[in-house]
Amino acid sequence: MTDRVEKILQGDVTTAAKLISEIDNGVPTAFEALRDLYPHTGHAYIIDLTGPPGAGKSMLADGIIQNFREKGKQVGVIAIDPTSPFTGGAILGDRVRMQRHGTDSGVFIRSLATRGHFGGLTQSTNAVLWIMEAMGKDIVIIETVGVGQDEVDIGRTAHTTIIVMVPGMDDEIQLMKAGIVEIGDIFVVNKADREGTEQTILDLQTMIKMGRKFKPGNSWVPLILQTVAISGTGVLELAQGVYQHMNFLQMENHIEKHNRERLKYEFLNIAKSCITHFIMEELKQGEGFDNILDQMIYGKIDPYSMVEKVFTRNHLCQVGTVWDVIRPSKPESVKEGQG
Amino acid sequence: MTDRVEKILQGDVTTAAKLISEIDNGVPTAFEALRDLYPHTGHAYIIDLTGPPGAGKSMLADGIIQNFREKGKQVGVIAIDPTSPFTGGAILGDRVRMQRHGTDSGVFIRSLATRGHFGGLTQSTNAVLWIMEAMGKDIVIIETVGVGQDEVDIGRTAHTTIIVMVPGMDDEIQLMKAGIVEIGDIFVVNKADREGTEQTILDLQTMIKMGRKFKPGNSWVPLILQTVAISGTGVLELAQGVYQHMNFLQMENHIEKHNRERLKYEFLNIAKSCITHFIMEELKQGEGFDNILDQMIYGKIDPYSMVEKVFTRNHLCQVGTVWDVIRPSKPESVKEGQG
Repeated sequence: MTDRVEKILQGDVTTAAKLISEIDNGVPTAFEALRDLYPHTGHAYIIDLTGPPGAGKSMLADGIIQNFREKGKQVGVIAIDPTSPFTGGAILGDRVRMQRHGTDSGVFIRSLATRGHFGGLTQSTNAVLWIMEAMGKDIVIIETVGVGQDEVDIGRTAHTTIIVMVPGMDDEIQLMKAGIVEIGDIFVVNKADREGTEQTILDLQTMIKMGRKFKPGNSWVPLILQTVAISGTGVLELAQGVYQHMNFLQMENHIEKHNRERLKYEFLNIAKSCITHFIMEELKQGEGFDNILDQMIYGKIDPYSMVEKVFTRNHLCQVGTVWDVIRPSKPESVKEGQG
Repeated sequence: MTDRVEKILQGDVTTAAKLISEIDNGVPTAFEALRDLYPHTGHAYIIDLTGPPGAGKSMLADGIIQNFREKGKQVGVIAIDPTSPFTGGAILGDRVRMQRHGTDSGVFIRSLATRGHFGGLTQSTNAVLWIMEAMGKDIVIIETVGVGQDEVDIGRTAHTTIIVMVPGMDDEIQLMKAGIVEIGDIFVVNKADREGTEQTILDLQTMIKMGRKFKPGNSWVPLILQTVAISGTGVLELAQGVYQHMNFLQMENHIEKHNRERLKYEFLNIAKSCITHFIMEELKQGEGFDNILDQMIYGKIDPYSMVEKVFTRNHLCQVGTVWDVIRPSKPESVKEGQG
């Protein structure tokens, strides 16, 4: 075991921060460290805190962190920021509000500005999660804006998913997040001193009734809480809600189910990144991707048949199977729920 | 060639609608029809019209459609709605506003309510696109809400990407779409009679200056237009803007580059769906996914090494290569741009 792996296991913040940077920059030895840390992961309780920008997530996180710290828990925060390849870094925004914990050695906060790096958002998040778990964090809060499939996947594999909304937002914007609404364990209507709070709660109740099927532990009845984060109203109740859900999952033996789900996603994500690379390499060495594109662009062969051709050649599928694989079926998660 | 393929080539709306339903329902013969139609595709001009719900996209689409119809062009519209697995169908909303074209045989409108079906959003969209092209549509407008990687990919491979914004939206919500902002060819500030229009235009100018690198034809200087869709103000200018960009791409020979990009995405998406299926099947027949998860969950082997193990066994990669593939690098599109 290298010196730095040992330091991270002892919770050294500087070494951990350096490793995260190295992973961001693609330093090969960083991966070795990650691999060495892996056996020391899998023990943290993961909370996904999601909601639109400006809903007050960071202030609520602050309240939850404080509560866990008072109980002597070590906390990690991964703040995932929507970002663009050209900005190159995280948009800071209200993240600074959490900085009062910045001097507390029991709290480790990292912003992730990623999309298209390190095989995608899920993988970057998991790498930082490994490091935080290895550092001995008991709780890791992942803060997301809740758009995109990657983020829904992160929410689906977290132990507790908290969805933050604000009253009076355009209904359609709220609907956009329907995919993530299904996986919410705790719903928070923040800024609940504003007009429209009751309507938002009614809407939430309807949505929850409509179904919540994709997460282990679905006999849990989601909580709907009201907070005014800026004055601290309801924040204690939120922290208590998290404990309540945590106890529920522990009693029902759902913690491991969540961990398995997360590993499954992680494995498949890594596999997909690798296979894309494999296919591209194969095409480069074979007839060349340009040649393949030429054939498709002039209508000689359609993309499905072309995939079949390349895959059959590499013994990855049999003739006539591509359509069977691709053709519509029930969403994967539903099927898995039945198995 | 089957009777129905011939009918679709003649532009028969009923037959086309039926085929789209069959594709949605996974009828095997639907794929054969799709394959037969493929050689007749690749000729339409594709417009991606994207922006948040409520920004007025459908009304702007209406204006663009009318303009193209007056010039005798056949138009197809694919409206992609954010949806949840539990709603099961598209959220209709303001789609009805386009219905005045519903009785015009030169306009064919389909809503797509998809995520997790037919191998993902991109593939469903492409299937409907094929059918519309085969029907002889000159122009296909794809309306999206512009969140998620799939939708950014759709925008990246469209010929003209129109991004609709409204003044006074929370700045951060606008930033959320930074990924898609880079691929905009025409920016529309709709509801431009509202306060905050000037600020939104200034913000846009800044963003555009910061870079627009991922699309063929990037020497194009994006247009920033103002509209008030509800009164028709600026809609003609928008239609003219589309023609202007179309002419630019034709002069610069960029149309084929876009088509190649789209086929490339399509091919890779199909390949990824197939390989995921292949891996899952392989794992089922081999030691079983549960066994693999057990090994990972008890910290015996990390997910990267596990992927490497499974892939090496199937001659899909060599030992020690997984990290090289996964580790962070410049976004794929940037690299491709240099190649």
